[in-house]
Amino acid sequence: MIIPKGPRLTPEQLHEVTSIVEEFGCRIQTINGTTRSVYAILGDERSETMRGRIEGLPYIDRIDSIQSPFKLMDVRSDLASHEIRIGGVAVRRQLLVIAGQCTIDPKNPNYFIETAHAVKEAGAHVLRGGVWKPRTNPYSFQGDNRSMEILLEASRQTGLPVNTEVMDEEHLRLAVEAGVHMIQVGTRNALNYSLLRQIGAAIAGRSTIVLLKRSRHMGPIDEFISAAEYIVNFGNPNVMLCPRGTMPTLEGYRSHPDESITPLLKERTWAPVIVDPSHSVGKATYVEACSLAAIAYGADGLCIEAHVNPAKGIGDDPKQSVTPDTLRRIVERARAVWALTRST
Amino acid sequence: MIIPKGPRLTPEQLHEVTSIVEEFGCRIQTINGTTRSVYAILGDERSETMRGRIEGLPYIDRIDSIQSPFKLMDVRSDLASHEIRIGGVAVRRQLLVIAGQCTIDPKNPNYFIETAHAVKEAGAHVLRGGVWKPRTNPYSFQGDNRSMEILLEASRQTGLPVNTEVMDEEHLRLAVEAGVHMIQVGTRNALNYSLLRQIGAAIAGRSTIVLLKRSRHMGPIDEFISAAEYIVNFGNPNVMLCPRGTMPTLEGYRSHPDESITPLLKERTWAPVIVDPSHSVGKATYVEACSLAAIAYGADGLCIEAHVNPAKGIGDDPKQSVTPDTLRRIVERARAVWALTRST
Amino acid sequence: MIIPKGPRLTPEQLHEVTSIVEEFGCRIQTINGTTRSVYAILGDERSETMRGRIEGLPYIDRIDSIQSPFKLMDVRSDLASHEIRIGGVAVRRQLLVIAGQCTIDPKNPNYFIETAHAVKEAGAHVLRGGVWKPRTNPYSFQGDNRSMEILLEASRQTGLPVNTEVMDEEHLRLAVEAGVHMIQVGTRNALNYSLLRQIGAAIAGRSTIVLLKRSRHMGPIDEFISAAEYIVNFGNPNVMLCPRGTMPTLEGYRSHPDESITPLLKERTWAPVIVDPSHSVGKATYVEACSLAAIAYGADGLCIEAHVNPAKGIGDDPKQSVTPDTLRRIVERARAVWALTRST
Amino acid sequence: MIIPKGPRLTPEQLHEVTSIVEEFGCRIQTINGTTRSVYAILGDERSETMRGRIEGLPYIDRIDSIQSPFKLMDVRSDLASHEIRIGGVAVRRQLLVIAGQCTIDPKNPNYFIETAHAVKEAGAHVLRGGVWKPRTNPYSFQGDNRSMEILLEASRQTGLPVNTEVMDEEHLRLAVEAGVHMIQVGTRNALNYSLLRQIGAAIAGRSTIVLLKRSRHMGPIDEFISAAEYIVNFGNPNVMLCPRGTMPTLEGYRSHPDESITPLLKERTWAPVIVDPSHSVGKATYVEACSLAAIAYGADGLCIEAHVNPAKGIGDDPKQSVTPDTLRRIVERARAVWALTRST
Repeated sequence: MIIPKGPRLTPEQLHEVTSIVEEFGCRIQTINGTTRSVYAILGDERSETMRGRIEGLPYIDRIDSIQSPFKLMDVRSDLASHEIRIGGVAVRRQLLVIAGQCTIDPKNPNYFIETAHAVKEAGAHVLRGGVWKPRTNPYSFQGDNRSMEILLEASRQTGLPVNTEVMDEEHLRLAVEAGVHMIQVGTRNALNYSLLRQIGAAIAGRSTIVLLKRSRHMGPIDEFISAAEYIVNFGNPNVMLCPRGTMPTLEGYRSHPDESITPLLKERTWAPVIVDPSHSVGKATYVEACSLAAIAYGADGLCIEAHVNPAKGIGDDPKQSVTPDTLRRIVERARAVWALTRST
Repeated sequence: MIIPKGPRLTPEQLHEVTSIVEEFGCRIQTINGTTRSVYAILGDERSETMRGRIEGLPYIDRIDSIQSPFKLMDVRSDLASHEIRIGGVAVRRQLLVIAGQCTIDPKNPNYFIETAHAVKEAGAHVLRGGVWKPRTNPYSFQGDNRSMEILLEASRQTGLPVNTEVMDEEHLRLAVEAGVHMIQVGTRNALNYSLLRQIGAAIAGRSTIVLLKRSRHMGPIDEFISAAEYIVNFGNPNVMLCPRGTMPTLEGYRSHPDESITPLLKERTWAPVIVDPSHSVGKATYVEACSLAAIAYGADGLCIEAHVNPAKGIGDDPKQSVTPDTLRRIVERARAVWALTRST
Repeated sequence: MIIPKGPRLTPEQLHEVTSIVEEFGCRIQTINGTTRSVYAILGDERSETMRGRIEGLPYIDRIDSIQSPFKLMDVRSDLASHEIRIGGVAVRRQLLVIAGQCTIDPKNPNYFIETAHAVKEAGAHVLRGGVWKPRTNPYSFQGDNRSMEILLEASRQTGLPVNTEVMDEEHLRLAVEAGVHMIQVGTRNALNYSLLRQIGAAIAGRSTIVLLKRSRHMGPIDEFISAAEYIVNFGNPNVMLCPRGTMPTLEGYRSHPDESITPLLKERTWAPVIVDPSHSVGKATYVEACSLAAIAYGADGLCIEAHVNPAKGIGDDPKQSVTPDTLRRIVERARAVWALTRST
Repeated sequence: MIIPKGPRLTPEQLHEVTSIVEEFGCRIQTINGTTRSVYAILGDERSETMRGRIEGLPYIDRIDSIQSPFKLMDVRSDLASHEIRIGGVAVRRQLLVIAGQCTIDPKNPNYFIETAHAVKEAGAHVLRGGVWKPRTNPYSFQGDNRSMEILLEASRQTGLPVNTEVMDEEHLRLAVEAGVHMIQVGTRNALNYSLLRQIGAAIAGRSTIVLLKRSRHMGPIDEFISAAEYIVNFGNPNVMLCPRGTMPTLEGYRSHPDESITPLLKERTWAPVIVDPSHSVGKATYVEACSLAAIAYGADGLCIEAHVNPAKGIGDDPKQSVTPDTLRRIVERARAVWALTRST
């Protein structure tokens, strides 16, 4: 829908607009309102070049697009019935809990091994363990390839599938070779389309699942879902969307919690929504409330940072990690809220 | 500075906090105010793990840090006198103008060649030409390796150094091999630390310059400068910072223009600030105003999208590109504002 | 705490700063860190003029204040044990439900009377009914004094105390004279200090309660609580804080839901927190999820728009109002989440 | 334009929507796109109730409105040629400079009198002086009626018309009785429609001018302009719009500078745009850059805080006020940028 700045286009302006859309195989339909006219583009209006040319005209206010830029991720696509299964959970039908450490400490592997057993006990289905970490400060610990071995050992001992974040093609290669079950894309790479394509190509034909974090800036919802389309486009539809808080922060938290985006995502896409309360609030004491709020909003699962001894964690873990006892209580209460809100 | 939630720490709490900081070689100094006490950390307080452990304590409100996470980029570092020269311009002493197309159309190379000559005529010192493009829509044109040849041909014909955006290691390798003079990091990769490190390593020992766009989310200023430190850390200090608008947008523009960040950046870092008005406002008619505002705020240069025939551009070019005539007027007026505001 | 731009103040600068604070009866304590020094103000640092003068110095980066601007609202004030009771509910110990129409239609009083009975049946303790309405469009219906009579009649028939929004001194006078039990301050007047003082004076010595909406801009939490102090200062401590969503909106909602602010408010103030899910999301279908999330975050109550026949409502009611059946389900589920999260 | 959630409305849905719009005297026109249909409302679509009822339907995504809620303020209204004159300036044709103290100190009247003479010397056309002040902290100085006498005395001595902020009906009465030439509405009252109506009524038939600050939250542009319509509607069209920075702040400033909104306002309304750089940046050292940027964006004037001795000011003045020398330089440079950008 083309909205002119003035009440209607002059004949010359309408002619110019019509010429442009016709170059792209479309037509113009004029809608004469009482005080203003708008102009519908009939045909495939998705060409960014066509729309850019029209928006570039000085007498045009804007184009309101009603077509989503994604296809496979659409709630009405054939993939809508696709079921993602991991850790014994049929996602969307049962609550999925991912838990573990934000960062594995390669010097103290026992903490992670103990955490792995403890989160399994507490009800987690997938073990989260950060091998590599994006850090604002270039002089902070950035992760260590040796942590991959610790992650795999924890997986072997507990039988839990594992999740780790990859930041580049080399991480991706190592993670896929190691058989990591769930690959995480962090908020800083949420719109790194080269990486998303590499992931799509690397997991095609495999059962690997991708957990795609939302970019921290409050960009359009379609931008978030389109990022998933970059991956799914290669053939493996196992992508889950992960809101994790946006900027600017709600004063006192790490981010502005955004679990409330869940119903809006679910209207547009079939992809499961897994909320990360730990990065949303950034402090252990608030994680439970955020987790239950996420389930109340319809989230399909939670990704929670936990540690057997948070004070001995590294990176963000001392601040954000809950203890296994707290995790168990969160999982129990999340199940209760799930039961309450999924009934009719 | 440690701020407790209550008016002061109990002796037991103070003991716990002291134990933590002593593990990291620091000490605590208590500052007793009239109604509240706060606690200074003496020593190197930059350990994120130490700070995370303290912030994780339930009786602590927050830690206010006063140390910046970067060193080389600091306005007081030895690099502060480093001069970046390109296209005959001593940046920071003279206005730098980068101009050209957001996207090179490989099917119509003549447009770019003509644009190159025209922007040179209009006063540009560096030729911008997008070979690869990050696009929200996975089905949009994503760029083409063949455009690199067009970019180099335009550089040969005009003698202008060239700028292009890289999105991954493969692009980086091709750009460095081709001798691209200025490598651009886009807003979606502004915090892609793996790519920043790869760039740092690839340009070490070369004269290549990096133009680092600001992430669209309104993150902390230190986060922006720290991203540059990832590159400079490898030895080549030729990094320039590029504000390009933030989210959420100012209704009617593509972004919320953020050229006003310039004085705040310059208080913290010596790096030149090159503003991108084209992505800030997103529409050709507003580019001049934003350009002059940037110079008024103290920007060292501008990165402007221009096209000999905007309507024939692709991607964002039809909407955002100014004509060579407009570019010439912007450059002239920007020089006038520069002269006005740099005098004493 | 005074933070200089450079690593430390020069002796001359320190002398200047010291002179300023001494004028206000304070002293300076220097805290010498390894690489930087900061300067604590000892004494009553709340003078805005003193702080303004220091912040105005060109070599000062900022002052980090650790004293809250409010006293009576503080979680540690003597008022912390003050109990607000209305509609048979001891607020903070039991869930409070306020429900009714955003706008009373003076031409169709029966809708409001029926709604009043229906929300009582559904579990509401207080009846909400808008007599006057702030509207963006100056030509929209702005309310009608005759609606006050309808509001009072509904209160008489149902026995429910009533809530209505006042926008100026005249509304306030009419509402107090009519014996309205709960006076609401809307988001556009949330920082209208003249109105807040008039309300404080008007309700002093009465049992009237104030429901203070949060301003839509994401201002500091202390600003929100300080606004309540303007009222309480006159002697009646019956103020409840009401988050109702902030700007910029989460795309698809009316606002960015902000029930997650609840734990942050409760750390600073004893005032009950009553969340308004209807204005947060702006559409009836999302109200239940937002309500339950609010309770999960620790809210003491909900303020929900309901209508016996939403399609016949006026103003925002057709879009936002839930039916009595939905309200009943929300109240039941909110009680269940309350029971779940208040247990230990 | 009605956008359904699905690709098109079912016949039953279309029937329901049609019934609603027909109640309000409108009709529906269906626009069948290739993959989706949208539905135009023909007729006067401004009824909020009609739109609310349609938006409340569960199968509707949203209504995109293309009619502005204001009439008199519209750039195409008959008022577009209305000229506001004050202090010898024909606003929009010449640069208007308003300058003075944020707060008059009733204990030290001489500072204000001296400031008045000094800002006149420096080029100001209108004298700003705050008699009453909205303050976040209820225990801060809130202004004093006695300051009105000081303001008037300064006006008499200098011959400058004066500007002061009113916060309620009592202030308004005093200001109008005193013959204050320009009445300011602050950001916290920017959407206080009761006050706006009282102002409109009070200044009808007078030459009084209103300076309407923008609300700090980044609300819609139409909301800002509509607020002015509340005033103008009473018959006096002397309203000027004043951007003054928005929340969330650009880290390091008081607000996020928003002078860039100027061209967007000017496309919709004929009202002059007077930018307040002092509250945008909040610190004297940045005021010049922000002022020149505002002129570059097309602002018609500036409202700047100045003080003969900023360190002796009260409230925000010590931090934000520029000296008369700085003011003179700003005015000269603003004139130069005006001349540069208004030429063709």
